[in-house]
Amino acid sequence: MSGFGTVAIAGLGLIGGSAARDLAAAGTRVLGWDRDPAAVDAALGEGIVSAALGEGFEGLEEADVLLVAVPVGAAAAVLEAALPRLQGARLVMDAGSTKASIVAAAERLGLGERFVGAHPLAGDHRSGWAASRPGLFAGATVYLCPAAQSSPAAFLLAHDLWSGIGGMPMEMGADEHDRRVAWTSHLPQAVSTALAQTMAAHGFTRADLGTGGRDVTRLAASPAGIWTDILRDNRAHVLEPLAAIEARIASIRAAVDRDDAQAIRDAFSSASAWGG
Amino acid sequence: MSGFGTVAIAGLGLIGGSAARDLAAAGTRVLGWDRDPAAVDAALGEGIVSAALGEGFEGLEEADVLLVAVPVGAAAAVLEAALPRLQGARLVMDAGSTKASIVAAAERLGLGERFVGAHPLAGDHRSGWAASRPGLFAGATVYLCPAAQSSPAAFLLAHDLWSGIGGMPMEMGADEHDRRVAWTSHLPQAVSTALAQTMAAHGFTRADLGTGGRDVTRLAASPAGIWTDILRDNRAHVLEPLAAIEARIASIRAAVDRDDAQAIRDAFSSASAWGG
Repeated sequence: MSGFGTVAIAGLGLIGGSAARDLAAAGTRVLGWDRDPAAVDAALGEGIVSAALGEGFEGLEEADVLLVAVPVGAAAAVLEAALPRLQGARLVMDAGSTKASIVAAAERLGLGERFVGAHPLAGDHRSGWAASRPGLFAGATVYLCPAAQSSPAAFLLAHDLWSGIGGMPMEMGADEHDRRVAWTSHLPQAVSTALAQTMAAHGFTRADLGTGGRDVTRLAASPAGIWTDILRDNRAHVLEPLAAIEARIASIRAAVDRDDAQAIRDAFSSASAWGG
Repeated sequence: MSGFGTVAIAGLGLIGGSAARDLAAAGTRVLGWDRDPAAVDAALGEGIVSAALGEGFEGLEEADVLLVAVPVGAAAAVLEAALPRLQGARLVMDAGSTKASIVAAAERLGLGERFVGAHPLAGDHRSGWAASRPGLFAGATVYLCPAAQSSPAAFLLAHDLWSGIGGMPMEMGADEHDRRVAWTSHLPQAVSTALAQTMAAHGFTRADLGTGGRDVTRLAASPAGIWTDILRDNRAHVLEPLAAIEARIASIRAAVDRDDAQAIRDAFSSASAWGG
């Protein structure tokens, strides 16, 4: 992976911090930036990051690659602030959970040719530098969403970077990506959150749950700020899955209400066949 | 635990089979019954069960304790079929996920004085003898719901039996138990099931999910028959939590729809504070 030269990472949280660890371990020089100076200090102190970028991204000129791994709502502003120092970069990526808006922002900023949106399916309910760890991307799907003008060279570089740290790149259009994760990621997150909220409002605690209930509510611990950004950004696609799950729960409730054994069993059978 | 003499277990699935393993390991003689002869054969073959009961519970007369660990919908019928051979038993228990109906059935059958309903919080999405294992109840809450006439001797025996295999007995009235588990167990199960059903209906598979989504849908693999029984039996208590989660999801959806950042953040914040 020495072919990447120097990689700058903006946002040293779970995703950015873990990427920094794996890249550094493979011999790549990593430059670090975070809005929280403590995260940069920790990454420097552990020898993962070789040098800190300035608050205004001073030093970014040395980077061949920029990976923006900040919350979805902040990514476009970081790209814009970094722009004047990106003349030398061969590849600019983000790592957010939604892709259409950031790809559009990169195109607006004239970065389209060198931009590839990335979304590693490696997030969980933990966050921050403290949650980052080596090997986070091993075996994880990494959606790669090129801009309309992305060059083959930029795309290949993005592919190699993620596969080099264990990820499984999968190319997908940004809109299709956003539609897909609305169902497979944002829906489970919102459901887990709504469940925890419901329990809390009725006086129950996590200690009242068995192992199964703890599984269902684990994601609810995810950071609120990150998810507020994601749902707002993916408004076009998340309303339908949310309405769909409401209808399914209402249908189970109606079946219980009229004591319809067959309808209850059908719901549980189709789910258990799927879930097995 | 030799004080229990002989314990008969009707239903050698995850719960009954695991109890049989721990009791046998502690030196208790275990008699076994299951509607599936293969489960009894396996339990005999592994030396867990000392002798099989007959199809009509022949041999049950030797038991000091009967534990009925069959699906909720079948428990009352098993109690009734076993009744003529229960003259010598000091304690009769079930191990189902709902308690009011089985306690009432035991009272109707004249078993009230010797009956204690039990519900170990140790179920998961697996089932059957093959899923049973030693130590399943270690640290698990075991709700004990006495009948109105349960004798202190029967209750103490039930307490000692479950704590002897690692459980943490907690006394609770059957109605309060059923109200409580509607929120803490039946609700997470129904939500996980509805989520899996929704994904399946829209063409997604478990392979499309990240680790978080797999957590949320793990319970969906639970056996449909067992859960149909439970929801039907607990109809009086499960409708309210199901309506409550629908309202919470609808509220998140409405907040996204009107792009109300504060309302979205409030939902996620209260859930993540609870879930942490």
